[in-house]
Amino acid sequence: MSRAPLRVAVLGAGTVGREVVRSLIECGPDLVAADGAPFELVGIAVRDLGKARAAGLPAGLLTDAPAHLVADPDVDVIVELMGGDEPAHTLIAAALAAGKSVVSANKHVIAHHGPDLEATARRTGATLRFEAAVGGGIPVLGPLATDLAANRVISIRGIVNGTTNYILSAMADEGRDYGDVLAAAQAAGYAEADPSGDVEGHDAVNKLVILARLAFGIWLDPADVVITASADGPGAGRPGITGVSAADIATAAAGGRTVKLVAEARRAADGSIEASVLPTALASDSALARTAGVLNRIEVEAVPVGTVAFSGPGAGGAATSSAVLGDLIAISRELGSTWAGLPPAAAR
Amino acid sequence: MSRAPLRVAVLGAGTVGREVVRSLIECGPDLVAADGAPFELVGIAVRDLGKARAAGLPAGLLTDAPAHLVADPDVDVIVELMGGDEPAHTLIAAALAAGKSVVSANKHVIAHHGPDLEATARRTGATLRFEAAVGGGIPVLGPLATDLAANRVISIRGIVNGTTNYILSAMADEGRDYGDVLAAAQAAGYAEADPSGDVEGHDAVNKLVILARLAFGIWLDPADVVITASADGPGAGRPGITGVSAADIATAAAGGRTVKLVAEARRAADGSIEASVLPTALASDSALARTAGVLNRIEVEAVPVGTVAFSGPGAGGAATSSAVLGDLIAISRELGSTWAGLPPAAAR
Repeated sequence: MSRAPLRVAVLGAGTVGREVVRSLIECGPDLVAADGAPFELVGIAVRDLGKARAAGLPAGLLTDAPAHLVADPDVDVIVELMGGDEPAHTLIAAALAAGKSVVSANKHVIAHHGPDLEATARRTGATLRFEAAVGGGIPVLGPLATDLAANRVISIRGIVNGTTNYILSAMADEGRDYGDVLAAAQAAGYAEADPSGDVEGHDAVNKLVILARLAFGIWLDPADVVITASADGPGAGRPGITGVSAADIATAAAGGRTVKLVAEARRAADGSIEASVLPTALASDSALARTAGVLNRIEVEAVPVGTVAFSGPGAGGAATSSAVLGDLIAISRELGSTWAGLPPAAAR
Repeated sequence: MSRAPLRVAVLGAGTVGREVVRSLIECGPDLVAADGAPFELVGIAVRDLGKARAAGLPAGLLTDAPAHLVADPDVDVIVELMGGDEPAHTLIAAALAAGKSVVSANKHVIAHHGPDLEATARRTGATLRFEAAVGGGIPVLGPLATDLAANRVISIRGIVNGTTNYILSAMADEGRDYGDVLAAAQAAGYAEADPSGDVEGHDAVNKLVILARLAFGIWLDPADVVITASADGPGAGRPGITGVSAADIATAAAGGRTVKLVAEARRAADGSIEASVLPTALASDSALARTAGVLNRIEVEAVPVGTVAFSGPGAGGAATSSAVLGDLIAISRELGSTWAGLPPAAAR
């Protein structure tokens, strides 16, 4: 093939961004699909130019003005790996409005602005892919939208947040209290200084909203996903895992159960979708309960397939770069958006 | 969309064929992808017309001449669900030579005639899809070829044969001998009257050959896959599970291990692919060892993603129909063959 190369700009050079840049530079020609266009890395937007140069990123490609890359007519594809709401949201929206392809790992932006971004992409014919936003490198959105496209999904449930799973695993293994383990996880870099996005369940909610778009054809409102534990179960009426006590875990263990933060969306009898992210005492012998540490596992129950599961490392720069690069290859093959083949999402 | 419908003929109305026919008749319009052509079922080839009519298959679509459907210019897509070598092989080859799209669940034909069928499909531009040939309804070939396309695969291993896994599970659970359990499995319909295809490992070999095509870009010769157990481990120097004794299983259990028939292909240091299907004593606590009964599990170790796993029901008419119908939807969306995007396979 001798197609014109796809000119790619990467916004953000954190853990995932650095891996993506490294692969595009080192393995560029090996990444080309047999029926796709080759890639050319033309820009990298970073927050701190000096730090990026010191980290060995190619100085000639660096800029601290991501909006310039988005507006540049010589950039075909924007890879957004900055995270957070703004400026990522505006940059993605502007790229799609201009008809550029976008790959994003930003679960917050996709979950919170999904309906608008999908409408913009459909209007301009731009491609938006976001496999990396859920489950790190585990293929799950692609299989839902393509391999499992003939199914009617009944439910999706999984463990999709590594930080809370690490904390719950450590509490169970060591019999320690939530506060102790959280502090240790923060010290070790497994939890952020402000851990609320993880421990209150918001990160898992975002991933569940994205899974539900592919599984059920609807963009749920993140605010509608239940995150407050019941007062009389594990979690003591508080959001996410913030109310889970050593006693909750001991009580569960005495009954052969393990407490996990389970994200679940299910088709109710009236056709509506019920969604929650709650600490749940699972049979300790089940595959979901045995998903330890930073692993993720997502189970899809559907007709006619039955229950299939996808598991693996749910985070990390290298693993997540696999999904970002896979999306880039899909764009070079003109496979369309992550939702390609599915009808437009129903209104929220 | 108002594309011309894809005219589909189904060859074979066994467990899987009946489910596919039922879905095409009952859910036809629901199966249409937003960007794909609709389906029209135009023929069903069966062995016994009387039996098929009695089973409620639509009499007007039935024929006992599959070659006529393949030759019919009014048929666009052949869905081959007859199984076995001939006439399935000749029918698939003829359809591809005529430029028709083919969906097949036939692991024997794909594994044994893969190089020729791929060459024919590439020559005529025909599409050949075979997700259903491995792991029933579990999406694994599609994710390997698309979502994981940026990875270099190090190894693939899995439990891909339900019959042997059922027998080994029953031997371990009940402490019974191979011969006893096999006889019971045959009586219950879980094993065939001539069980050699399953118990000697040939079925798993076929699936491993197909997985390796997507993972490593080469069609292995099924005859080159090692199936003879080592003389001093479980399996006593015999093929597949035929030499596994109750004593092998008890010895493994005493060491915290479980005997499973593991299919594995791995990139050796010299770049060649080493492939085997062997009874293997796995740590009983591992996810692979805990894959019980008729479940399948396939683990892919690759760079940069790490290890990801796919699991679910590896057989059964309904589960397998999910993969067949998913391939039909992919054809209606013009996504190409299962290997689309990958380079042509290296010579055997």
